[in-house]
Amino acid sequence: MKSNITQTRLGILGGGQLGRMLIQESINLNLSVSILDPDKNAPCKNICDYFEVGELSDYETVYNFGKNVDLITIEIEKVNVEALEALEKEGVMVFPQSRIIRLIQDKGLQKQFFKENDIPTADFKLIANREELLKENFDFPFIQKLRKDGYDGKGVVKISQITDYDKAFDAPSIVEKNIDFEKEISVIVARNEKGQIKTFPLVEMDFNAEANLVEYLISPSTYSLEIQQRAEKIAIDIATSLNIVGLLAVEMFLTADGNILVNELAPRPHNSGHQTIEGNKTSQFMQHLRAILNLPLGSTEALGNAIMVNLLGEKGHEGPALYKGLKEVLKKEGVYVHLYGKKLTKPFRKMGHVTIVDNDREKAIEKAKFVKETLKVIA
Amino acid sequence: MKSNITQTRLGILGGGQLGRMLIQESINLNLSVSILDPDKNAPCKNICDYFEVGELSDYETVYNFGKNVDLITIEIEKVNVEALEALEKEGVMVFPQSRIIRLIQDKGLQKQFFKENDIPTADFKLIANREELLKENFDFPFIQKLRKDGYDGKGVVKISQITDYDKAFDAPSIVEKNIDFEKEISVIVARNEKGQIKTFPLVEMDFNAEANLVEYLISPSTYSLEIQQRAEKIAIDIATSLNIVGLLAVEMFLTADGNILVNELAPRPHNSGHQTIEGNKTSQFMQHLRAILNLPLGSTEALGNAIMVNLLGEKGHEGPALYKGLKEVLKKEGVYVHLYGKKLTKPFRKMGHVTIVDNDREKAIEKAKFVKETLKVIA
Repeated sequence: MKSNITQTRLGILGGGQLGRMLIQESINLNLSVSILDPDKNAPCKNICDYFEVGELSDYETVYNFGKNVDLITIEIEKVNVEALEALEKEGVMVFPQSRIIRLIQDKGLQKQFFKENDIPTADFKLIANREELLKENFDFPFIQKLRKDGYDGKGVVKISQITDYDKAFDAPSIVEKNIDFEKEISVIVARNEKGQIKTFPLVEMDFNAEANLVEYLISPSTYSLEIQQRAEKIAIDIATSLNIVGLLAVEMFLTADGNILVNELAPRPHNSGHQTIEGNKTSQFMQHLRAILNLPLGSTEALGNAIMVNLLGEKGHEGPALYKGLKEVLKKEGVYVHLYGKKLTKPFRKMGHVTIVDNDREKAIEKAKFVKETLKVIA
Repeated sequence: MKSNITQTRLGILGGGQLGRMLIQESINLNLSVSILDPDKNAPCKNICDYFEVGELSDYETVYNFGKNVDLITIEIEKVNVEALEALEKEGVMVFPQSRIIRLIQDKGLQKQFFKENDIPTADFKLIANREELLKENFDFPFIQKLRKDGYDGKGVVKISQITDYDKAFDAPSIVEKNIDFEKEISVIVARNEKGQIKTFPLVEMDFNAEANLVEYLISPSTYSLEIQQRAEKIAIDIATSLNIVGLLAVEMFLTADGNILVNELAPRPHNSGHQTIEGNKTSQFMQHLRAILNLPLGSTEALGNAIMVNLLGEKGHEGPALYKGLKEVLKKEGVYVHLYGKKLTKPFRKMGHVTIVDNDREKAIEKAKFVKETLKVIA
């Protein structure tokens, strides 16, 4: 049978770092890549076949963009779903499917999906606005999350006392008990159209409290096999219930008493999988391409201890980006720098990441600390 | 110290597969890449910041292209050296240096360089034309190589008997004794401006006799440590004598009696280093970038047994390329496909390569055979 996979015209909604790393892999398969992004200087701009500046939330823009490709995928959930539904009806492949993007855009629907499918998650209540929040009189502390448009730690607030109500959102939200978790963990699972499913090994994340962004990620986890298998099973259960085609990142809380609670989903490559580029036999980006092209999924085996450090814009620096300490970190063995091609830096902006691979876990941690102290994005 | 390496405007002469894989790595360092290539559909066309169609052998074209970049490198030796010399004088960085490109463009000068620097190589004689060849009356069999413009097995002829004289070239050539070698081997060495030098492990090559192109390559070699070290020392000696900045691929013959003779040099990423993308801690492409940017060189340690299979256009097929057997080969673990984005295939055209990585050498060989039998480029 002749294969024309390599003649696929792939459209990606969003042209940021995830799209950029997806393109780096798509080059290996000769895919023709088109990008739609509102920013005329998006990281993907100069490395794709066709780049269009346009709003991802605009029906006409997304629809017209999609009419010129065979297959659409996303690198961000906040896109016009109605346009994707129309495209699907007209025979354009949309992976992840529009109904999944619609579900995941709304954290309220996500939580209801978890409940209906017996996926463990923190208890929650949906509220319509600030007034309802005040009326409910929840026990402190609790977490309020916007149902829509939260991103990279935005749209989440912790309410610990009455005076915190000033910070509360006046919009449709989820209210959750504050989970006193021991660790945030993640499993990325891939599923292709044929139904083949593979999970990447469980990873552990450390957050920067100030930025509410992943600061360190370590793979594979050293938690017990039982915990790893339980987390992987949850990810597989969700992917199966959704019948998703593509990658699904499942972010979870591991509580002190050993419970695993699903926090939220991302139906695309994810920050918790960047270390797979050098740390696993198949990268999450190639796995996503394999899944959406209905190719056999690749092995997700870990090649060693991999630590991912997000490279965030330094506090107090805003303007054209400079990378201080690059030579110093490249002196160390097994240090892989990925810059995202963003011209301007600002505090906590994701400007790149560094993966450290070492057979010795302690050495990997030591190097990761060195990288964090040494490599700085300044203006 | 602030680093502005990431603001380097890199110009590459040639936009083929080597440029393409160099760009895949340069994305990680935010480099702005400009490409000059005579083919308007060159593999690099859509993945660089600036693409110019132009002759690499034309002084004005190369000079004007070079005036708009900070650093020039090459992915093919056949470029206008005079333009590079002028650019060097005007402060553009040219790595490898123009004098090295000039030397390597001429296989006669290369051989003289080997002789002058005590680099082991087959005995040779320089001749000016066919007439001189006939007069010399060399013992059969011998090899005649054009001094200039040979490429991918072109420009080399074996003369075994009088009737073969019809095939002889009428141009400045080298005549060499026919080396009855056991194996072609290669060491890729990198040197940065600071003088740091690193070699990739010795690799063994198997040639397709009909196409005179590398068919299989296996890394690391199983030859004795003594042979490996001798070959690496030769590569280091050459890089040091040349004071090259960048990568240097050193192709050698290993003879049945254990001699190593240098065949020829390529001052750039090379087909004998493609397996480093997945098979070594640092890829040859990133190593070349590190070298020409005067960054610390990366570890070249092998990560396992890696076999590289060139994906050549199938005999009897010419036209728009199709890839038969892609799904089948991607079912196997540790199989990495790299397609070169060439729209048209023809017999023996290099259309891509596949790297197989496996801890078990026999399994790697088995998979490589499966890939060779299964994955076909047809029209």
